[in-house]
Parts: sequence; structure tokens; C-alpha cells
Amino acid sequence: MHAITIPEPGGPEALVWDEVPDPVPGEGEVLVEVAAGAVNRADILQRQGFYEPPPGASPYPGLECSGRVAGIGTGVSGWNIGDEVCALLSGGGYAEKVAVPAGQLLPVPAGVGLTQAAALPEVVCTVWSNVFMVAHLRPGETLLVHGGSSGIGTMAIQLAKAVGARVAVTAGTKEKLDRCAELGADILVNYREQDFVEEVRKATDGAGADVILDNMGAKYLERNVKALAVNGRLAIIGMQGGVKGELNIGALLAKRAAISATSLRARPLEEKAAIVAAVREHVWPLFTGGHLRPVVDRELPMPDAAAAHRVVEESGHVGKVLLIAPQGT
Amino acid sequence: MHAITIPEPGGPEALVWDEVPDPVPGEGEVLVEVAAGAVNRADILQRQGFYEPPPGASPYPGLECSGRVAGIGTGVSGWNIGDEVCALLSGGGYAEKVAVPAGQLLPVPAGVGLTQAAALPEVVCTVWSNVFMVAHLRPGETLLVHGGSSGIGTMAIQLAKAVGARVAVTAGTKEKLDRCAELGADILVNYREQDFVEEVRKATDGAGADVILDNMGAKYLERNVKALAVNGRLAIIGMQGGVKGELNIGALLAKRAAISATSLRARPLEEKAAIVAAVREHVWPLFTGGHLRPVVDRELPMPDAAAAHRVVEESGHVGKVLLIAPQGT
Repeated sequence: MHAITIPEPGGPEALVWDEVPDPVPGEGEVLVEVAAGAVNRADILQRQGFYEPPPGASPYPGLECSGRVAGIGTGVSGWNIGDEVCALLSGGGYAEKVAVPAGQLLPVPAGVGLTQAAALPEVVCTVWSNVFMVAHLRPGETLLVHGGSSGIGTMAIQLAKAVGARVAVTAGTKEKLDRCAELGADILVNYREQDFVEEVRKATDGAGADVILDNMGAKYLERNVKALAVNGRLAIIGMQGGVKGELNIGALLAKRAAISATSLRARPLEEKAAIVAAVREHVWPLFTGGHLRPVVDRELPMPDAAAAHRVVEESGHVGKVLLIAPQGT
Repeated sequence: MHAITIPEPGGPEALVWDEVPDPVPGEGEVLVEVAAGAVNRADILQRQGFYEPPPGASPYPGLECSGRVAGIGTGVSGWNIGDEVCALLSGGGYAEKVAVPAGQLLPVPAGVGLTQAAALPEVVCTVWSNVFMVAHLRPGETLLVHGGSSGIGTMAIQLAKAVGARVAVTAGTKEKLDRCAELGADILVNYREQDFVEEVRKATDGAGADVILDNMGAKYLERNVKALAVNGRLAIIGMQGGVKGELNIGALLAKRAAISATSLRARPLEEKAAIVAAVREHVWPLFTGGHLRPVVDRELPMPDAAAAHRVVEESGHVGKVLLIAPQGT
């Protein structure tokens, strides 16, 4: 098969479409013939040499895909050759085939096309595990989503609205904020022109955000704590604004607030399977009612993954950028 | 009645036993004739002028007491004149009488004397709400307790052992560590001579602590994050080592860990009542089996609260320092 390889870390041109051995599904694994993969920021870090795949993971980038079941390892039940699926991966999604632990497979949800389904696993699992399983967002509460127009952001808006929460978002342009509003966001903050602490405070009668989903890390730490409501929960899933920041424990304690930080990729199989099972139970039915849809910025040919990385690095996109495998549709 | 008043903030001598008006139980409140109060570090901060009582609270210090029900306000059921009780207070425990919201009353538990029961409400509610309701300590996990010989510490050791957890403690002397061991602590760290990160790591085969109960705040923040296990939870309940510290978000994220910070005193009535109800349901039965007991360092006359504050400020004590009301026994 072919896959995107990274012979030497570097810029987008470091991504090379090359012939590689086919993966073989091990015990408990399923082989997926990939229809589409999707780009995540972690792929860019991996391309740059800053994010080693965890032990045992595929060396090729790609944390999610959609496709058809093409082979079944020993000890797997519930899946058949030809099933249309999407999958949360530890790597290897930028390829024509990938072997996946069966616990990380999901059926293509109702009303979603096969390639579009590649936009779902990473964002749905990230949002569900952080905003709901860890931070326990409840109906009537306010969620603040930084980067509201990102893949994660567009899914967080939809999921929070689907459960009856109020949603505030930050983004850097009016166009992105308009897209967030179309998805249901109630409070729109242009971070280039407005202070999100102040805007969230005004929009919540001084209360603040009950849950914050943050991808900025250190740069926003102090302001995120300020923007939290009493009993608020800050869920950090990225560190685009740095790794180490000053924490005002007094402010946290006065609000009886909490901070969590997680990533999906390094979790053990059983934790990933538990998240995928929860997503299938709680999130997948929402597609049937039309409460959720994948938000796809554009589709590019997988061999030209470099172009897709450039799009994501320029941050002009809204939602996910997909990579269509040559035989993928 | 008489109460300890603070005419001017200052040292222990600022505590003045004076005649004051009797409290009157309002709607939903119970009047308690105090047998004993207990000293908390927050009382010292209040005496020094650093911790204003929350709105509506008694101006006198004292966050817990034991005694007998001496009056019942409107809208209260389940309590009768003469009942022996202990109570979580928002203030006013250094007094002969105190009015308490009924949701913050507990019966004196099985096998505990009336005065000794004053040692329980604040520590049991603090440990239960943080270590169990927020951090969800589970059987087989490891809890690290800083200040293991404090009132909070001695209760945290006993409660964690009662649910089948392993307990590590820090303290500053061999004598204090010996007392922690008597209460069941498995891993003893003298923080003056040993590095708790290293000692906890060694004792857990490199895994670290699943839950840390911390009273030091900023001073221990970096080391606490280092000492956490994967999926670990740091529960901060005090800031004796400062308010602002550097947080390594990358380290937190790599461990999928969480930090919470809480205090009891400022919580609204319904949250306090929910904690007290959970304590009555889950913790009070453990006294019957002898799995828990109050740890009391000494009892001093309430009018000499200054002497009790000196004992706590010198940090030579183990467990709680009680203040016996003149007519208290």
C-alpha cells in the first residue's frame, strides 16, 4: 500500500507519499481500507519532529480515518468485512490501510457520508471525554470554547447545544464567528478585538463560564481562571500558547474550581475503548435527529497531505481538513 | 452569653472572652449550647485580619462545635431539644451558644464523647468533600496527605484506610510520623530530610500518588504535579506555602491529571448541607465499627483560646486542639 511517510522532520514538504508494507491486523484488531483521513494539529507536531508516536503505534501520521473493514484479526466480534466505519487511531491514518484495535471503531453515523465520517472520531472523542466525562457540562450551564471554528470547536458547539448548554466561543475573524453562530454559538468573542474574560462575564450576568475547553495552555491560564464561574471546570486539551504558566491557586480556591488536562493519543487501549463506547452510546444517536453534523472545510488528495498541512497551519479553515485516499470513495 | 471576640486583629492576645448578645435561631436554624469548639487555621487568619467572615456569618471565630440542641427555629424537623450534636459552622464556634443551619448538624457519632465530637465536622467534611466527592479516591489507590499529623491529616489517613486505599504522609518530625503510622499510614516521609516526590515514586513502583491532599499551595505545586500518577488528582485545600505558583501544563497533560481547589466556609448552604448529608451517610457508620476516631491533641478552656492558638501556631500538636466551653460538659 501507500502511506504518507516522514523520512526527515520538517515543513509540509517533509510529508512523502511512498510505498510501504501493508499493515496486518493483530489480535483484537481490524484492518480498515481507508476512504479518508483528517488532519489534526498533533500531525503537524509529529511532522516537525516534536511528537513521537507512542510505543506500538504506526509510524505514519493520522489520528482518525473512515473506510471499510477489509480484514479481521483474531478475537474480534461485531464487525464484518465491508462494514463502513470510522476510527480513532494512534497513528497511521494517512495511508491506504490501517490496523485498528476493535474498541476504537465506530459505525458511520446516520446521515453522514463515508468520507465525511473521517472528520468525526478525534473531535467527538476529545469533546465528549473532556467536556462531558471529565468536566460534566450540564444543561443550562455555559461552555466557553476557545478556537470555536476549529474541528474541535465546531463539534463542541454542536454537542453543548444538543445537551441544552449555552455556548461562548472565541475566534480571530468575523467570518469564523459567523460560522460558529450558524452552529448555535450564543456568545461570540473576537479575541483580536475583545477580552474574553470581560465578554463572558457580561454575557453571564457576572457569573462566568461553568466549563472552558482550552487549546492555548499557558497563554490563557490566568485569564481562563478569571473567566471561570464558581464551581467551574477548565479542561485543557492543547498548549498552542505554551506549556508553563502561573496559576493563581487563591483564585481557583475562591471559586472551588478545577483544572484538568488530557490527551487522547497516549491513553491505554481500554480507556480509548471506554471513550469510544460512551460516544457511540451518547453522541451517535444525535446524528439521527440531525442535531450534529461533521464540519468539513475542504477535501484534498491524501498524496498531497503537504497542501492540507499548509491550510491548517495558516489557520484560515473552519472545521476539519480531510485527506481523500486514492481509492477512497 | 460569652464568646471570643476580636476587637482588633493581631496575635493570640487579640482573642478576648467577652459578653455578647445571645444568637437567635432564624428560619431553618437550630440553636446549639456549645460543649466544645475546635481550632482551625482559618481561625488564625481571621484573628490576624486576613479572613473576613462571609456575609451573614457570625463575627466570632470557630468553624465547628459540639453541644446540645437548645432551641429550634421555624421550618426545622428531625431535631429535638437536648439532642447531642456536632456542627459545621460558618463562624461563631468560640462561644457558649451558636445558631446553625439545620443542614449542617450531625448527631454525635457512635462511641465518641460529646466534647470530642467537636473535633470532627470540619475535618470529616473537608476530607470527604475533597478526597472522595471531588477526587474520587478508590480502593487500592494511593493517597498522599501533606501534613499527615494535622487534624485534616489524621482524619484523611483513617478515612482512606477505611475504604481500602494506601496512604502516604508527609510530616516534619519522627514523632508525628509515628502517630500517622499508628493511624494506618503506609508510607512515611519526613519532609525535612526526604523528597516526597522521590519517596512516593519509590513506594509505588514509579507510579506516583493517585490523589494528593495538599495544604501548601504554591510551594508544593510543581512537586505535587511531579508526584501524581497517570490520571492523578491534586486536591488543594490550603495555601500555607503561597498563592501563586508555576503550573507545568505539559506535565499535567502527559498524566491526564487534574487539580481542584476548594474551601468549605464560603459554600452556599445547600452545598454544605449536601456534604454533611453525604458524611452522615458514608462516614458516620464507620465510627460504629471503630474504623474512625477523633484525634485530639489537647483540650483547653475556651476563654483561653489564645493559648490554643499558640499551640496550633507552633505546629507541635497532632490532631485537633479543642476549646471547652465553661458550662460545656
